[in-house]
Amino acid sequence: MNLNRIPVLEKILSANDNLAAQNQAVLDAAGVFAINLMASPGAGKTSFIVKTIEHLALRLRLGVIEGDTAPVTIDADRIQAAGMPAVQVNTGGDCHLDAVMIASALPELPLSELDLVIVENVGNLVCPASFKLGTHASVLIASVPEGDDKPYKYPGIYRGIDVLILNKIDLLPYVHFNPDYFRQGVEILNPGVATFQLSCTTSQGFQPWIDWLMARVEGRPGK
Amino acid sequence: MNLNRIPVLEKILSANDNLAAQNQAVLDAAGVFAINLMASPGAGKTSFIVKTIEHLALRLRLGVIEGDTAPVTIDADRIQAAGMPAVQVNTGGDCHLDAVMIASALPELPLSELDLVIVENVGNLVCPASFKLGTHASVLIASVPEGDDKPYKYPGIYRGIDVLILNKIDLLPYVHFNPDYFRQGVEILNPGVATFQLSCTTSQGFQPWIDWLMARVEGRPGK
Repeated sequence: MNLNRIPVLEKILSANDNLAAQNQAVLDAAGVFAINLMASPGAGKTSFIVKTIEHLALRLRLGVIEGDTAPVTIDADRIQAAGMPAVQVNTGGDCHLDAVMIASALPELPLSELDLVIVENVGNLVCPASFKLGTHASVLIASVPEGDDKPYKYPGIYRGIDVLILNKIDLLPYVHFNPDYFRQGVEILNPGVATFQLSCTTSQGFQPWIDWLMARVEGRPGK
Repeated sequence: MNLNRIPVLEKILSANDNLAAQNQAVLDAAGVFAINLMASPGAGKTSFIVKTIEHLALRLRLGVIEGDTAPVTIDADRIQAAGMPAVQVNTGGDCHLDAVMIASALPELPLSELDLVIVENVGNLVCPASFKLGTHASVLIASVPEGDDKPYKYPGIYRGIDVLILNKIDLLPYVHFNPDYFRQGVEILNPGVATFQLSCTTSQGFQPWIDWLMARVEGRPGK
């Protein structure tokens, strides 16, 4: 939606920001680091979380909030099968998560037992960028088969992120994807953003992301 | 957005429907068949249009309306390079096209010289499903690397379509994708929907789609 066009939306966003700050205070009080994980549908968000859990090998205690537009528990089931607590938020058709949804989901997780919460946003490259949740870092997953022009076409979401994951690099031999063109588009919007190229299928490139995550979680507020 | 929750949005949608009907009357008066083409970011919408132009081999005169959230003309440039007129609609950050945007774009195309208009919606599997544009058919492109669970997770957009394209079938050997599971999800939501499995990279499977398109355009209103 065009956030400059409808005044009522500005008020909604302001109220959302206030509640996001309250969510972050709840997380900080519990000593939990939280990530807002965004991506296009099918970029591999849930696989990325499952692989992250595997690579952490119980060094961190992790909970997941799953945002879905429909009342299906496919993603939450996968997280629970990986051995971590997951809460599903059904947005009722909404195209993004907001701070209200996170505020209602946080009490469902055993925060005092956790180090890290990953919020899996709705698959969408537009609206999630506009709604703060109260998380400490925003992570965007791009994937090779989506194409190298996505930063140019969805600039809003690239501007606000702290980490960029380029997933499915195992497919580079089979699709047209110019890494230099992709990188140039990212650099214009978010110079120097931490970037990790990896594959959730082969695990190639996963360790540098785990190292970044461990360092950030160990340096989190309240620790 | 949750369309049941905010009354003001119901009024917007009702006004949108009225304008969509006016758009369709404009198209019918010009004898033009129009398609609303929707997909996730990176599913291959622009490549699909370019390949469709190639396969039509000038049997149809075709114009394109390109919806983009940012003022970049990457997609419109590709259509014009393929030899067809294209108009870009910059949504100013909006996550979908609406009937107002189409009403302002239609006069920019030489409708009296065209048989077909393809509207390339913003890459998004949620919001575009809620906004009628005045087109005669809705076409959704799913792509193999997005995964076989998308019908279950984004049911709204699958329910309202007339044609489903499964693109990037050349990548089937390299990714996990269960065609039966995908198809079952589609059948629950939209039994018997016309489905074409193809690859814009190899052109495999393109002809049945072209046959469907030719038949629909030849039977269009005003002809």
